[in-house]
Amino acid sequence: MKAGVVDDAGRPLSAVSLPTEAHRGQEFGLERMCETIRQAVTAAGLQLSDIAAIGVATPGLMDIPGGMILDPPNLRPWKNVPVRDHVYRVFGIPTAFQNDANAAAMGEYWAGAGKEVASMALFTLGTGVGGGIVIEGKVLEGRHSHGAELGHTKIEMTRPRQCGCGRFGCLEAYASATAVVKRAHEALNEIPGPSTLRDLLQRFGELTARDVFQAAANGDELAARLVEETAYYLAIGAMNVMHTIDPDMVVFGGGMTAAGEPFLQRIRAHVRELAFPVPAENTEIRYAQLGTDAGFIGAAACGRQLVVKNV
Amino acid sequence: MKAGVVDDAGRPLSAVSLPTEAHRGQEFGLERMCETIRQAVTAAGLQLSDIAAIGVATPGLMDIPGGMILDPPNLRPWKNVPVRDHVYRVFGIPTAFQNDANAAAMGEYWAGAGKEVASMALFTLGTGVGGGIVIEGKVLEGRHSHGAELGHTKIEMTRPRQCGCGRFGCLEAYASATAVVKRAHEALNEIPGPSTLRDLLQRFGELTARDVFQAAANGDELAARLVEETAYYLAIGAMNVMHTIDPDMVVFGGGMTAAGEPFLQRIRAHVRELAFPVPAENTEIRYAQLGTDAGFIGAAACGRQLVVKNV
Repeated sequence: MKAGVVDDAGRPLSAVSLPTEAHRGQEFGLERMCETIRQAVTAAGLQLSDIAAIGVATPGLMDIPGGMILDPPNLRPWKNVPVRDHVYRVFGIPTAFQNDANAAAMGEYWAGAGKEVASMALFTLGTGVGGGIVIEGKVLEGRHSHGAELGHTKIEMTRPRQCGCGRFGCLEAYASATAVVKRAHEALNEIPGPSTLRDLLQRFGELTARDVFQAAANGDELAARLVEETAYYLAIGAMNVMHTIDPDMVVFGGGMTAAGEPFLQRIRAHVRELAFPVPAENTEIRYAQLGTDAGFIGAAACGRQLVVKNV
Repeated sequence: MKAGVVDDAGRPLSAVSLPTEAHRGQEFGLERMCETIRQAVTAAGLQLSDIAAIGVATPGLMDIPGGMILDPPNLRPWKNVPVRDHVYRVFGIPTAFQNDANAAAMGEYWAGAGKEVASMALFTLGTGVGGGIVIEGKVLEGRHSHGAELGHTKIEMTRPRQCGCGRFGCLEAYASATAVVKRAHEALNEIPGPSTLRDLLQRFGELTARDVFQAAANGDELAARLVEETAYYLAIGAMNVMHTIDPDMVVFGGGMTAAGEPFLQRIRAHVRELAFPVPAENTEIRYAQLGTDAGFIGAAACGRQLVVKNV
């Protein structure tokens, strides 16, 4: 769990991480959450009375307006946890609750890559592909708290890859870090011949997405093809969200952005080919700027919206 | 061109259609537009002084906030036509401008299938697949007037059909009436044996989507397969918009809804299988209710938003 104090301009004044220790149950987890908040306040040299609002963001199936985690995949056996009300009861400070990818989008919108624009879609590229959409200062939460599940839009029917979610043909099944590694293994099995990736696999017994991007940067042909395909898949994701909500900006965040500017350029090039000319030319495609702080900065923005008129 | 007078509850008091005669150019076209409006007012037994606001909706590439048609595919050689300002100058009545599919969505949202909900996505199924999204009373126009181009989201990579827009793998290339007919021809070429569709084709020299749906309703196996596949494609479109904006309701309108309740049931069944459990169970999937009046009713709603606080 990570918490930070954020000032009125979206700048973090502190950042504290504590282990969730999910196996110790949700009572413990909620107290740990509150303790992380307390430590973040102390680390910023402040007191709780200095805090205007709190924002909490978590992954998993949730009821955002209800402030509840319903069934978090990584926090079993947590179930129907009234996070927002608990935190509010403990601190007596207005508390907002948000999905973690939505919060990251809100963070980038408020203080990061999307600072200057009115609407933005974020793809977070990690073990999965998360999504968040902000339009005119509002997180697109959706009617059933399923807004911006962008990794789980379907982009393939004929030979769909199975996704971690169990469904088939999801963007995430093609473009997550997990998918990159899986596709690398497949390619090594299908295509004989020398490859940095084959050497790495033999030496370390496993591959990471980072290995693939690094090998590509160093000129490995097979790795370069995998990276190029990944850029294409992500461009399809970008194009589909552009042809649905047509935002000012599409932002890519998460670990895979370590691949740097060349990867972003390939995504941009594919978006130009794939999308309608006007959005293709005019929609800004950027990397996120706030790193792993985006979540708590965006959660803070959501909290701030409870107590000020505009974020 | 169709125009109607609409009362404060979204009920049409008149409806008038005049031929566009696009070949006579945009000057003529704009005057014809104004004449259609005048006749609609007369047909409602009213005078122009009774009209609080005007809404105009057109197809094609446009600048919605600028009130301009930029490059309408069916109205060449029209180009950069300041529709909204022209209509406002002629009548001196507050005038709104909107994309036609967006207007249809707004019509259904205000006075049709979506009357009771807060957010809605509309797919219009005709020669193409159009789209419109309304969230909390606002049309999702998008930053570049390309919001809700739902027919042009990509759902296939491996063997993508070419779309009328020139791109590949668009939903429209699978699920429009045009696509249904094309897929029928392909199926007849690939699959030998008796079929109502083959008989119809031989008798009339052509097939329509209506033929396919009717043959399916009458038990033709090949036609039934085509209809079932179409329901599946549309369910993918619905699921992708559900996982992006997560609306209260997804509405299907346009000529193909003549296929009736069984077709809608098949779309619903596929949505249940495809989408995440919570939106799959709870998102309402409906047919549009306003027919071809949806466009002018929704345009009127957009006009009305200029002069009242809430629609």
